Amino acid sequence: MSDFDITARNEVRRYAKRGKYDRATIDPILDEALVCHVGFAIDGQPYVIPTIHARMDEQLLVHGLKGGRMLEHINAGNPVCVTVTLLDGLVMARTVFNHSMNYRSAVLFCRGATIEDPAQKLAALERLTEHVARGRWADARQPNEKELKATTIIALEIESASAKTRAGAPGDDGEDLEFPVWAGVIPLPVVPQAGERDPKQTVDYPVPDYVADYRR
Amino acid sequence: MSDFDITARNEVRRYAKRGKYDRATIDPILDEALVCHVGFAIDGQPYVIPTIHARMDEQLLVHGLKGGRMLEHINAGNPVCVTVTLLDGLVMARTVFNHSMNYRSAVLFCRGATIEDPAQKLAALERLTEHVARGRWADARQPNEKELKATTIIALEIESASAKTRAGAPGDDGEDLEFPVWAGVIPLPVVPQAGERDPKQTVDYPVPDYVADYRR
Repeated sequence: MSDFDITARNEVRRYAKRGKYDRATIDPILDEALVCHVGFAIDGQPYVIPTIHARMDEQLLVHGLKGGRMLEHINAGNPVCVTVTLLDGLVMARTVFNHSMNYRSAVLFCRGATIEDPAQKLAALERLTEHVARGRWADARQPNEKELKATTIIALEIESASAKTRAGAPGDDGEDLEFPVWAGVIPLPVVPQAGERDPKQTVDYPVPDYVADYRR
Repeated sequence: MSDFDITARNEVRRYAKRGKYDRATIDPILDEALVCHVGFAIDGQPYVIPTIHARMDEQLLVHGLKGGRMLEHINAGNPVCVTVTLLDGLVMARTVFNHSMNYRSAVLFCRGATIEDPAQKLAALERLTEHVARGRWADARQPNEKELKATTIIALEIESASAKTRAGAPGDDGEDLEFPVWAGVIPLPVVPQAGERDPKQTVDYPVPDYVADYRR
């Protein structure tokens, strides 16, 4: 796995020092996030659609919406941009100007196609399921032929990518440091709560570890 | 404020029953979210950029990146798509096929321009700041002329929009309801933690209520 060259397409121009181009930064962002935003444009009209994704080695799998305009467009070889953002906290600076957020984001420039081969599709679906909750694939009732046909997964090649991250305290400096107001960071973690059993479930099946101790 | 007509551009085609077109659904999603994803395409190449936003009446304000390719493109009158997604929980069904997420998302089709008038820009910046933490604008050191010039805010007119939401238990049915595995929902709320004071701050200024009790 190689890192990404800096090109006109993926260069982080604003706050350039926050830009990163290595897979050691980008891959963990993709692996932690539960939602991605897929961007594409048809006749100049952009669309941004949220969906789930999973990294499979160097590819990115995304769950496609059957019958949506996205699939035909991607399968015709058109480029997509997939962006993933993890918000870590709010940076409350002394100055309005230095207010910011702590975050980790990745922007991927991709092309790809839907997976047609049933065995490959099953493997991709396993990867997506395990991305969300490791262990669930083996526990759940696996897809039958009809369900597999009704499922669309797109495999994307990542042609170019960058990450952008911010962490730490506010960036105030100089005499602003004396401005008399609380300054700091409000951490905003996603905190998984106890699983809520489906009310339709009458048998008291044990709560799996990946539910009881769910974390990203 | 009127709701949105259903057109080819904003129609929710997949899981159409999850689609909503009324401001009573869309506005609260915009108001709760801290991050939006702005999509645009230049010469057919899509880009999706995360940034902060705030609704100001019927307009959407987004924080622009000075020197980025986005601004010139938007100011030339080109369309953008702004998508906001709130993830509420993971739906762990008995069947892999019925696994899903509980979420609230909004997709907005917009055009707009950067705000040039200093007074309007200041009002927009106040709205963005208050969107993040109500009360912060009055407490923080407000922007000076140089900072205001270095800030870019885009005002977008929302031409069309839709929301898509899912809530509740897994959608398994029939004999799958007897499949012997725990099924239910893992709630994934963002839980604000105690504010971490900037280590550079030597005076023990009180923690404001909007930090101590931060919530969306």
